[in-house]
Amino acid sequence: MAKVSLSAIQELRQITGLGMLDCKNALEATDGNIEKAIEELRKKGTSIAGKRAGNTTAEGIIVSYIHPGDQSGVLLELNCETDFVARTAATKAFAQDIAMHIAAMKPQFLAQEDVDAAWLAKEEEIARELLKNEGKPVAMIDKIIEGKMKKIYSEVCLLKQAFVKDETKTVEELLKELIAKTGENIRIKRFARFEIGN
Amino acid sequence: MAKVSLSAIQELRQITGLGMLDCKNALEATDGNIEKAIEELRKKGTSIAGKRAGNTTAEGIIVSYIHPGDQSGVLLELNCETDFVARTAATKAFAQDIAMHIAAMKPQFLAQEDVDAAWLAKEEEIARELLKNEGKPVAMIDKIIEGKMKKIYSEVCLLKQAFVKDETKTVEELLKELIAKTGENIRIKRFARFEIGN
Repeated sequence: MAKVSLSAIQELRQITGLGMLDCKNALEATDGNIEKAIEELRKKGTSIAGKRAGNTTAEGIIVSYIHPGDQSGVLLELNCETDFVARTAATKAFAQDIAMHIAAMKPQFLAQEDVDAAWLAKEEEIARELLKNEGKPVAMIDKIIEGKMKKIYSEVCLLKQAFVKDETKTVEELLKELIAKTGENIRIKRFARFEIGN
Repeated sequence: MAKVSLSAIQELRQITGLGMLDCKNALEATDGNIEKAIEELRKKGTSIAGKRAGNTTAEGIIVSYIHPGDQSGVLLELNCETDFVARTAATKAFAQDIAMHIAAMKPQFLAQEDVDAAWLAKEEEIARELLKNEGKPVAMIDKIIEGKMKKIYSEVCLLKQAFVKDETKTVEELLKELIAKTGENIRIKRFARFEIGN
């Protein structure tokens, strides 16, 4: 039988609420695989929530912004380290500003690394062809493309966009100011933007 | 050269803002493929928005609900046929009720057909094994499984959930009442639900 780690036993215990020994036995039977252990326990009729309980370590706030006229709206999650910072006026004002920014500036992604690779490759191909058709020398094209890609990020990524209420800084820079002010790590976790007819 | 339909030309025209003849030529060069035609036009340097302009035929409203404490929130899009119905008090009240319902009842999907098939198959397998382990006769198991699956839909699909403010009807039935009242087709198009730590 496989030897299972104490941390795996503790994690399974936290998810299921079962005793240490029950968790250990279940994990030994599935070579330490937690998902499988839960499945096997459920098959035996052990009472466990069907889906994994959420990992509720993060603090933060959820805010929304509905643009006047009710034709577009944004939902935003901001995470921080303590509930105290989540409730400060500075944090709340930042979250509201960013929700309003998203409504206006329509970012498609949160960060640079979230940009859809296939979409980006297609954009690059189109830009490259266009430059070729314009008769630009091949040596120059790579340089121009690099600049173009940077510009694309600043158009579609929330963190790279110029902040709508002060275009001298990006949303990322504004976030860094808030982090400096509160002395706590804060991140924009996710957002949803709906618009009628889109 | 391929013959392209008038409707394709009109669609390309609406997207690009170009003249009929330009659109016709572009489509003929791509066998009527609108996406490709846009790509080729952009490669030639024709000024077109990078992404397709949204098809703004639908009317509707976007509403949000933030649960007191700012730890969970919902964004909801409701579509209808006319702007007039979108703005009636009955429609707005319904949208607000449903947003609040989603915050409380945590549906994972909109409709039965949106349920993740792999997840559902796994749930069925677990239920089947459990019934076998309980010694239920094989002939009964199919019947019980059918009931169980129905129950799962009523737990995870918004439209199949019992309405939180009146559990005698489902959200779908409530929606049908609104459709009857307004005399117009109305649908819940999409929702997002965020919760801190999930």
